[in-house]
Amino acid sequence: MATLTDIGLAAGINILSAVIFFLVFAILRIQPFNDRVYFPKWYLKGLRESPMHSGAFVRKFVNVDFRSYLRFLNWMPAALKMPEPELVEHAGLDSAVYLRIYLMGLKIFVPIAFLAWTILVPVNYTDNTLEAAAKLRDITSTNIDKLSISNVEFGSQRFWAHILMAYAFTFWTCYVLRKEYEIVASMRLQFLATERRRPDQFTVLVRNVPPDPDESVSELVEHFFLVNHPDHYLTHQVVCNANKLAKLVKKKKKMQNWLDYYQLKFSRNQSKRPLMKTGFLGLWGEKVDAIEYHISEIDKLSKEIALEKERVVNDPKSIMPAAFVSFKTRWGAAVCAQTQQSRNPTLWLTEWAPEPRDVYWDNLAIPYVSLSVRKLIIAVAFFFLTFFFMIPIAFVQSLASIEGIEKAAPFLKPIIEHKFIKSFIQGFLPGIVLKLFLIFLPTILMIMSKFEGFTSLSALERRSATRYYLFNFVNVFLGSIIIGSAFDQLKSFIKQSANDIPKTIGEAIPIKATFFITYIMVDGWAGIAAEVLMVKPLIIYHLKNFFLVKTEKDREEAMDPGSLGFHTGEPRIQFYFLLGLVYAAVTPLMLPFILIFFGLAYLVYRHQIINVYNQEYESGAAFWPDVHGRVITALIISQLLLMGLLSTKGAADSTPFVIVLPILTIWFHTFCKGRYESAFVKYPLQEAMMKDTLERAREPNLNLKSYLQNAYVHPVFKDDDEEEEEEFNGKLDHESVLVPTKRQSRRNTPVPSKISGGSSPSFPVAIKEHPGP
Amino acid sequence: MATLTDIGLAAGINILSAVIFFLVFAILRIQPFNDRVYFPKWYLKGLRESPMHSGAFVRKFVNVDFRSYLRFLNWMPAALKMPEPELVEHAGLDSAVYLRIYLMGLKIFVPIAFLAWTILVPVNYTDNTLEAAAKLRDITSTNIDKLSISNVEFGSQRFWAHILMAYAFTFWTCYVLRKEYEIVASMRLQFLATERRRPDQFTVLVRNVPPDPDESVSELVEHFFLVNHPDHYLTHQVVCNANKLAKLVKKKKKMQNWLDYYQLKFSRNQSKRPLMKTGFLGLWGEKVDAIEYHISEIDKLSKEIALEKERVVNDPKSIMPAAFVSFKTRWGAAVCAQTQQSRNPTLWLTEWAPEPRDVYWDNLAIPYVSLSVRKLIIAVAFFFLTFFFMIPIAFVQSLASIEGIEKAAPFLKPIIEHKFIKSFIQGFLPGIVLKLFLIFLPTILMIMSKFEGFTSLSALERRSATRYYLFNFVNVFLGSIIIGSAFDQLKSFIKQSANDIPKTIGEAIPIKATFFITYIMVDGWAGIAAEVLMVKPLIIYHLKNFFLVKTEKDREEAMDPGSLGFHTGEPRIQFYFLLGLVYAAVTPLMLPFILIFFGLAYLVYRHQIINVYNQEYESGAAFWPDVHGRVITALIISQLLLMGLLSTKGAADSTPFVIVLPILTIWFHTFCKGRYESAFVKYPLQEAMMKDTLERAREPNLNLKSYLQNAYVHPVFKDDDEEEEEEFNGKLDHESVLVPTKRQSRRNTPVPSKISGGSSPSFPVAIKEHPGP
Repeated sequence: MATLTDIGLAAGINILSAVIFFLVFAILRIQPFNDRVYFPKWYLKGLRESPMHSGAFVRKFVNVDFRSYLRFLNWMPAALKMPEPELVEHAGLDSAVYLRIYLMGLKIFVPIAFLAWTILVPVNYTDNTLEAAAKLRDITSTNIDKLSISNVEFGSQRFWAHILMAYAFTFWTCYVLRKEYEIVASMRLQFLATERRRPDQFTVLVRNVPPDPDESVSELVEHFFLVNHPDHYLTHQVVCNANKLAKLVKKKKKMQNWLDYYQLKFSRNQSKRPLMKTGFLGLWGEKVDAIEYHISEIDKLSKEIALEKERVVNDPKSIMPAAFVSFKTRWGAAVCAQTQQSRNPTLWLTEWAPEPRDVYWDNLAIPYVSLSVRKLIIAVAFFFLTFFFMIPIAFVQSLASIEGIEKAAPFLKPIIEHKFIKSFIQGFLPGIVLKLFLIFLPTILMIMSKFEGFTSLSALERRSATRYYLFNFVNVFLGSIIIGSAFDQLKSFIKQSANDIPKTIGEAIPIKATFFITYIMVDGWAGIAAEVLMVKPLIIYHLKNFFLVKTEKDREEAMDPGSLGFHTGEPRIQFYFLLGLVYAAVTPLMLPFILIFFGLAYLVYRHQIINVYNQEYESGAAFWPDVHGRVITALIISQLLLMGLLSTKGAADSTPFVIVLPILTIWFHTFCKGRYESAFVKYPLQEAMMKDTLERAREPNLNLKSYLQNAYVHPVFKDDDEEEEEEFNGKLDHESVLVPTKRQSRRNTPVPSKISGGSSPSFPVAIKEHPGP
Repeated sequence: MATLTDIGLAAGINILSAVIFFLVFAILRIQPFNDRVYFPKWYLKGLRESPMHSGAFVRKFVNVDFRSYLRFLNWMPAALKMPEPELVEHAGLDSAVYLRIYLMGLKIFVPIAFLAWTILVPVNYTDNTLEAAAKLRDITSTNIDKLSISNVEFGSQRFWAHILMAYAFTFWTCYVLRKEYEIVASMRLQFLATERRRPDQFTVLVRNVPPDPDESVSELVEHFFLVNHPDHYLTHQVVCNANKLAKLVKKKKKMQNWLDYYQLKFSRNQSKRPLMKTGFLGLWGEKVDAIEYHISEIDKLSKEIALEKERVVNDPKSIMPAAFVSFKTRWGAAVCAQTQQSRNPTLWLTEWAPEPRDVYWDNLAIPYVSLSVRKLIIAVAFFFLTFFFMIPIAFVQSLASIEGIEKAAPFLKPIIEHKFIKSFIQGFLPGIVLKLFLIFLPTILMIMSKFEGFTSLSALERRSATRYYLFNFVNVFLGSIIIGSAFDQLKSFIKQSANDIPKTIGEAIPIKATFFITYIMVDGWAGIAAEVLMVKPLIIYHLKNFFLVKTEKDREEAMDPGSLGFHTGEPRIQFYFLLGLVYAAVTPLMLPFILIFFGLAYLVYRHQIINVYNQEYESGAAFWPDVHGRVITALIISQLLLMGLLSTKGAADSTPFVIVLPILTIWFHTFCKGRYESAFVKYPLQEAMMKDTLERAREPNLNLKSYLQNAYVHPVFKDDDEEEEEEFNGKLDHESVLVPTKRQSRRNTPVPSKISGGSSPSFPVAIKEHPGP
């Protein structure tokens, strides 16, 4: 068992590495040649010019202003300066709300830590079970255990203090959760209301359009919505299966990169034309002139792309049974998204269209039956992934104890027994081992979510986050506690009944406190500090800059700002909530470590969000119900484990008092769900109507149809006419900001109608243009 | 343990009592003076005249046509004759679909019984564990056990037959379930589509209207819907708190009954005016003339009622923050019911209005927070009810075994040991005891549901049914199995771990087969046969007929046709599904008993539905998802128990093969839920639009507003102007059936508008009348 000295050493190492990371960061970030790595967000917003244009040659690359080195930590207050509304404006609601998770951690745990240290620590410390046990049975206990619940006597009345505190912690956590849910919900509604016009406000994604032998998908969609939403339907865009096309475009881009590389190489060394082999990875095959080869390949690909594009547009088979249907008003779209269209609930499925950037195109055409089969497959696969992953972790965990290593490799004994190395192994290794295991996981989980068939990136990430959290809970939390102690107690544990499992876990929890403290330091302190360094983007940027970049636009593309990565980041935070809540009443010593994590992470991520990350999409904080739900889960787990722990401590008669807590917590959860969740799922008609009325009053002549016509085009098609597109968008933005100076007559500018009236006699509905106010 | 003889005796008794019930019924039902008891449905429909008007005096009361006594069983084929569509027309969809549950039982269990008897019975019977055990340990086993899984050797390969059969049973059950779900869903949609115009198609119940200091609830509702559903809003009716008024009216009716009674008494015996005491129950107090006293009391009450009516209508405090909002089209109502109205999801809650008869008026004004607190309270209360009810049952169960009685009362030993009485106790008593316990339960559960705040009778009954089922499962099923065997195995069971519980139950299941067989015979055979006799309504009718009835209308009111009672009937059927599925692979002997129940019950209830029951409401088979879900639950339970049983039988290595079953079943359930459930929850816009269009084409001049104006009036107000009402409805029906012969000009018949335009300047929306086609 680790002593305070071990923990002190681990803390020293981790603090040192965190400080080193910060120092390196402070130096690197003020070098002009790193500017695009550490401030890409501002470049993307067009608010920062490359510093390389002006000044002396050296100054372009190295910062020689030595005063700026003295202020090397001033990014920290700067990160805190930007007020929240401006942050929402600058980085979007998703990012701003994401930061609130850390803030919520502080809000929950600062009072809890205070209470735990003023009440529980004295209660634990003044008892003397461990001393007595040490005298009786020659067991050494550490100071850490003296502060924890382990030091309280069997059957002591002191446990009432812990129960009381469990109540206080629960109520405080629920209070903060409710407040935060309320604030985030109103932020979301505020955001949706003040937001400028976006195509997804008017648009609904329709899936599973039934096949019809007589009509094309496009006609079918048009007729259906003309009949069933006659006053609101505006236009629609069918979805093409452009997956193959996208693959070709990607391949062409890669070829282009290689061409750039060889051309740059040639321009630097004109004497020798670069050669290459055409075989696998350039290892064998015919030797050819690299530049010419790539030019011809690109040419071939361009032709292929043109052909494929032709095919996608014209071939009815490439049209998928899905469409983006746009309405004349937000009200119309809100109605269509929230209602069932057809008798058969698996046809004409409608849902809010995700933001155009957020659409995951590959999944739009999966039929209903296939979807539910996929769900089953993934559920089974995830089960196996979760429960068979435990075996290697258990193995490594057992190795990473001194005794384990000595048993496995006796010849290492002299080295291990050295005091410093022993402390290092005990304080540092288990955390790193675990961390390494988890690096490959998110990719697997993301592939699972994609296979399951979600249609937007945000949904994919949310689902992956849920899975990641479950995985973390089973493998990192339970795995570390149960199997760790299972190896301690040999196989006696396996034969225990399911009834006793909470007891066993409860018993093991105080023992595992030191392990989790080292984990927090490695993952939560040094890991977060390393995040700010952006090592991978830094290296890649400089490599690209050296080998590929020719123009300013290339340099723009070489930037890799990255994004928050909700699917990995959020479960990581949640793990700290879980640890904090479970250990709050058991080992209050852990709380300060967690507080430092939340504070540091808040600071670092606020800086990153302001200066670096560029969100791929904006979901309007749609993830908050998940966040809330997981904190509730952690709370319930902590209560159950406390119950188990108390029953092993001879305080079983207090069980009825503790069992009230999870019941109340579950009820609180359903209450919050009913009260706030719909703000994240539905779009109230009142809001929609208000915005519609306002907009109609402000811009009576808005041509919505042309605005929405091409909003949902596959990105492959968009790349081509990007410039036209931008121009077009610019014009629209312009239009929507300025008050129109001349009133156009509606009669002179008829809305282009693509309706092929009366091709089906059974739909006797005339087309009405929206009259306008 | 009961032997085949015991079961034979019990079967004999139950068959005999069933036959007696049927004979008595056959005689009673053809007596003219019982006509209104056994054919009330036809009277209510106006299709049957009282047979007492014509013929000789004796014939009015007693059937003297002896030939009709010979055909005493011909009600059975008659009950089966009416085809299903006609049944829907005659008794409503709820009743017709309710019958399908019995039919589904037959569909599921006939092939299962066939398979079990052709495959499992030979497999079980040809093994010889029990014989060997009997020789070795002097244990007597019965023939019943020889047919069950108990007879298969420990660790035998024969268990593969049982696993195979479990697969077959699961797939067959799921197949039938899916087919039925599909059929019922389409029946429901068909029913909703072909149904004639009903107010609830156009109406939405709005709850939690926020209080406003400046506007009344009525104005508030009007403004809100004029703004947010400008093209669809038609009218609304606020809800008054008339609970006190309803109580007064009820009291008056009771007084009127007593008055009738005394007047009738006086008219029969003119010599003596009836006297009564005014005190409690007429036991003490001043002696007064009963007729005069009641006349004056009724007078007083009438005045009070008039005052109260005045108050309810005029006092703003008696207006509850809820309203029935009607729309111009079904489309508008469907949209409003399925969408969220306001930012705050706890205000302006909209849901489909129940049918006017189906509204549970007392619960319309419960605010959101109170609702969720009530839910919590009821959940806890139900938990206690369920788990503390077990104690008395366990006690009685242990008494009702021979050994138990002998221990408790040794002096009874000589009587009990008599062969006949012993068989009687073992075969009959446990079932009756259990049945008695359950009689008082539905009332308690109904009160719970009412407290929980559901707004329609159908929802109240559905919720009660769910609770009843849970209760049955925990107390009757698990309670009989676990506690019964717990008393057998003394306290060793209590110390067992949760892990082993499925095993213990699995082990106990074959032992309890005979108990459940007797239960089926008492409850499912004799009980069902008794249902047809209608003892309680028969007695009450004749009492009322003798003491109160003066006019034909009184006689009408004296009829008590009753209704299906979904909240007690459905869980009872479900219990048979549970027994059938659990015992199908364990004790196939039980299946024929269950088949007889389903067949008999189908016959009896079909007769009752055609001739007797008068449904209080029509929910359009909204209960089917519950029915489906419970059969699924039973299926999963049966699979888990089979797993437990097999693991105690030395076939633990087959567990992976059995555990696939519940996973597949759960997946099947989610699949069905997604595929069919929405037909029972939502109203597809396509359907609504179709009906709207049709109606508009057929009746262009329909005055919908006057049709809907008074549809949702509290029944207390309705009683008064019942005649006007009926006349009004009649006129409407007339209108809607006839093709209009002259075209009325819309300008001449303006729709009466009660809209108080512009009282609030913030709602600048003009009122548009629906233009019509």
